Amino acid sequence: SDDGLYAFSAGLVMHLDIGGFPSSGPSDGQTGRFPKLNENARRLRLPLTWRYGNLMASLTPEWGRTVDGTAGLYEANMVYAGVRNSQFVLGYYQPRVTMHDAESSNGFMFMERASVSEVVRLIAAGDTRMTFGGRSHGERWYLGAYLTGQTYGDRTNDPTVSDSQVGSVLRVTGRPIATKTTDLHIGVSSTMSFKRNQTARGRVLSLSDRPETRLTNERLISTGTITDVKNVWAIGPEIGLRYENALIQAEYYHIGVDRNASASRKGPAPDLGFQGYYVEGSYTLLGKPRRYSPKDGAFAAPAPNEEFDLWHNHWGALELVGRYSVMDFNSHLRGSLPASATGGVRGGVQTVWSGGLDWYPSRHYRIQLQYNHIEATRSETAGSVNTRGRRIDMIGSRFQAAF
Amino acid sequence: SDDGLYAFSAGLVMHLDIGGFPSSGPSDGQTGRFPKLNENARRLRLPLTWRYGNLMASLTPEWGRTVDGTAGLYEANMVYAGVRNSQFVLGYYQPRVTMHDAESSNGFMFMERASVSEVVRLIAAGDTRMTFGGRSHGERWYLGAYLTGQTYGDRTNDPTVSDSQVGSVLRVTGRPIATKTTDLHIGVSSTMSFKRNQTARGRVLSLSDRPETRLTNERLISTGTITDVKNVWAIGPEIGLRYENALIQAEYYHIGVDRNASASRKGPAPDLGFQGYYVEGSYTLLGKPRRYSPKDGAFAAPAPNEEFDLWHNHWGALELVGRYSVMDFNSHLRGSLPASATGGVRGGVQTVWSGGLDWYPSRHYRIQLQYNHIEATRSETAGSVNTRGRRIDMIGSRFQAAF
Amino acid sequence: SDDGLYAFSAGLVMHLDIGGFPSSGPSDGQTGRFPKLNENARRLRLPLTWRYGNLMASLTPEWGRTVDGTAGLYEANMVYAGVRNSQFVLGYYQPRVTMHDAESSNGFMFMERASVSEVVRLIAAGDTRMTFGGRSHGERWYLGAYLTGQTYGDRTNDPTVSDSQVGSVLRVTGRPIATKTTDLHIGVSSTMSFKRNQTARGRVLSLSDRPETRLTNERLISTGTITDVKNVWAIGPEIGLRYENALIQAEYYHIGVDRNASASRKGPAPDLGFQGYYVEGSYTLLGKPRRYSPKDGAFAAPAPNEEFDLWHNHWGALELVGRYSVMDFNSHLRGSLPASATGGVRGGVQTVWSGGLDWYPSRHYRIQLQYNHIEATRSETAGSVNTRGRRIDMIGSRFQAAF
Repeated sequence: SDDGLYAFSAGLVMHLDIGGFPSSGPSDGQTGRFPKLNENARRLRLPLTWRYGNLMASLTPEWGRTVDGTAGLYEANMVYAGVRNSQFVLGYYQPRVTMHDAESSNGFMFMERASVSEVVRLIAAGDTRMTFGGRSHGERWYLGAYLTGQTYGDRTNDPTVSDSQVGSVLRVTGRPIATKTTDLHIGVSSTMSFKRNQTARGRVLSLSDRPETRLTNERLISTGTITDVKNVWAIGPEIGLRYENALIQAEYYHIGVDRNASASRKGPAPDLGFQGYYVEGSYTLLGKPRRYSPKDGAFAAPAPNEEFDLWHNHWGALELVGRYSVMDFNSHLRGSLPASATGGVRGGVQTVWSGGLDWYPSRHYRIQLQYNHIEATRSETAGSVNTRGRRIDMIGSRFQAAF
Repeated sequence: SDDGLYAFSAGLVMHLDIGGFPSSGPSDGQTGRFPKLNENARRLRLPLTWRYGNLMASLTPEWGRTVDGTAGLYEANMVYAGVRNSQFVLGYYQPRVTMHDAESSNGFMFMERASVSEVVRLIAAGDTRMTFGGRSHGERWYLGAYLTGQTYGDRTNDPTVSDSQVGSVLRVTGRPIATKTTDLHIGVSSTMSFKRNQTARGRVLSLSDRPETRLTNERLISTGTITDVKNVWAIGPEIGLRYENALIQAEYYHIGVDRNASASRKGPAPDLGFQGYYVEGSYTLLGKPRRYSPKDGAFAAPAPNEEFDLWHNHWGALELVGRYSVMDFNSHLRGSLPASATGGVRGGVQTVWSGGLDWYPSRHYRIQLQYNHIEATRSETAGSVNTRGRRIDMIGSRFQAAF
Repeated sequence: SDDGLYAFSAGLVMHLDIGGFPSSGPSDGQTGRFPKLNENARRLRLPLTWRYGNLMASLTPEWGRTVDGTAGLYEANMVYAGVRNSQFVLGYYQPRVTMHDAESSNGFMFMERASVSEVVRLIAAGDTRMTFGGRSHGERWYLGAYLTGQTYGDRTNDPTVSDSQVGSVLRVTGRPIATKTTDLHIGVSSTMSFKRNQTARGRVLSLSDRPETRLTNERLISTGTITDVKNVWAIGPEIGLRYENALIQAEYYHIGVDRNASASRKGPAPDLGFQGYYVEGSYTLLGKPRRYSPKDGAFAAPAPNEEFDLWHNHWGALELVGRYSVMDFNSHLRGSLPASATGGVRGGVQTVWSGGLDWYPSRHYRIQLQYNHIEATRSETAGSVNTRGRRIDMIGSRFQAAF
């Protein structure tokens, strides 16, 4: 409006994936759908924001996210932005935990976050999580702290939910070096689920992830359903170093699962531990390199110096990316004995090598090309898809518009 | 547009509920999910309107409403507004019946309408009802009359629907006193379902309501499924009296269920009668008191004199509210004999005492705090949740944005 | 924006249907829901477009389409419009095949396309189809060519899909006569599904259509599920002739189904052939007659000379329409022997005679009234709804807003 008090905006996040699996290894009785060709509406979001003075209300419907897209919700919340460089939020939100999660999905190096980041998000963060908290930043620091509840749709998906999860998210980062040629980012993320949703099966936990692509809905590794869970927590360091056009960044997280009293009455029920990490790098061949975004406490995507224009020999921005990522869902195993012998979990270890090219013809559009080589050790808890260990190759592409 | 012929607008209705049940009484074998802590996306609506001359088209997607929110529709209709103070509508609409229903949900005294209003709405009105009709008003009167059909999604939810409901809604109100200090509202609402949807189970009726909160999905009282229904009707008076900052208002409805010929062939099948009523009051402590809205034939919410601003000692508007509400689903009972002995219904009687505070920091935002004490006599038709009678306490809060 | 580089628009497509079946013929043990009165949210679309230079991104949520409306998606794609009179698209789209499909649904003569057009669309086109390709036109020609994949939601609806369909759409049309009084349109449409989605049942095909109305969800004719399908194709001519206020247009399509090697191992498995055609005419009684739209390669709706205004004796546009339409799902039958004797299909032959009136009070609104007489020969593959042949009458109306 003319007095600047009122404003409305409508944005768009469109991520369309096309690709498939040239090989999914010898099956040996293993199942799983790894199509040669597949298409996926990965993200179709309509971010709508109303502002009135210092208070904003956001509603973001979503038509992507699941196997093949479905009508749903990404966020619905109210934000108070009256304190400089800070935002305090109440409602359905994505409270950011881990460095990968802090990045905008429009600027990811790869089509998906590393598995450990996806898994840590699941504990008490992730999309459309009931959230109360805030974040604040300066040029050289970032702090985000949130209390969180259940996820939108939890009770629709499982009508037996009779008490809501309570959890927390804490992320603190610093930027000790900030020069024209060099940025150093360090940080710690942690999250905890104090109590899980109470369902007909009690307070349970099930962690898993797809093989760093959504072109299949299969999971090679999974903790299975862990019952009688007291609380779940994760903590770990983040690091990122930019030198001129090159960026290298890494994270490691340990996930702990504490069992409650009734767990041990049913057999061996040790507290469990899982871990994951990744190292990834980007080299910007054309255009402005990845730059540090203090408000996110993370690096943002490259940008064109000049937008793509064939007639003027302008080519936008181009970067070359690579990643090594491990997610380990094995805990408390003794040799090759079944996990039940010790009350542990043989969920499998997944290792993914990825390489790719990201092209940014203009500020609003992006095309990604990516190759994944996936290896997973056998899992007792991922169904019949990975009973013997598996090697799989994926080639994917993403076509992206963002307004 | 510049000639004023064309216009587009986008609004928002966001109601987020957080709360729970400090006590749900001794269970004695009774079941039911009354969580200590729960969260609910109560209303997430995006009202979109296109106007061209005197004709408007409205589309309002919805992401709230069910147990925990789901993507759906609130309204989709065309309105002719070419007659002064009148609107004629065709399409999916919320035709207003009862005084509570005539109020905007953004201005309710309590988080939910009184049970009797919810139940009367279910007969042939409610959200997303196929509607043809109109309303008109003057400074001292209101008339709304509608023919109504099935609800959006009826045939998706029950694919056996083979003939659509036909019903009607009529509401007439007057305002005999309209002075600066005093407003008196009187009125009559009535509704009728001439024929119910024809389904695989025939033409049936099932009325129930949650305990005046959506923080649980349980119903303590219910008519159960009444089969072989000829028609269903409801009628009753409305009254509201404002004196300066205080408003007291009340409604009573009688619901009649006429059975068809085949009902009596199966056993005793008397025509059934249910009733409900409530009395509620508001006292505005800060800001402008509730004011009469002639176009709705109902009172609207308080408004701030000055919007909340800590530094200038402005506190918006604040009101104190209380309600006593009864819904009686018992009909044709003989003592404590089972209802089947007489062909009656022992659906239970629910009484809710509520108190609360509503704070309006600005015209677009509101926070509600509310306490309910709920008592229900035993119900033979509400499943295992209330076989012996039950006393439950609820504490709830609502965070609301409306644009 | 001020530099013309950026633009955002929000449109609306609202089609609400009301009507029913005065008679559905003697049932003789046949089932089916043909309600006397029914209501349907046929199309509720919100077309949103963002433009940046020559690239557009479109997101169109949908709340209509299924039996009774449900929240879903109509399109989500990116379009390059940098070549004159051309559009190149990638994403979820409706690639147009057949002349009926090329028309805007806002301008259809009848409430639904002729059955053969609906059926041909199903093979490798239709709504929300993953598409890559383009179209181009001049004043007297049109060319559209697309590669297509699976439909949005295929894998949500059937999680066993393990490989995506690949298909194509090609449509070429000309306009040999283009004078003030006369337009002649000729064309050829073809489509092919090179490989079907791989599901738990293999690569299968199932073609069917409702009786040219969505006021029932029943299908009188259907191919049933044809297994072991190698590929499916359709080809046929289009013709349209306008002389002053009169327009007559017709299409014929042959649909071929080639079976793969494993089909013949299970019994007789001939390649199958189906066909359909229609002839329809429009006479514009009031207003501007249907005009040729070169960019669509099809005729568009009449338009008012002056918009409806009772006081000035303006009545908008009005047209009278009629259609004869046949869809034949019988193939390789020998007399009245069961289809299994020859490996053929007795899916039934449906003939629909339709007549109607379309009124256009203004450019944004339309009301349609329509009568269908439907006859279908018996079908072995349409379930119990049409085991003996059937005659049905339908009266329908559509209330439409388009912005």
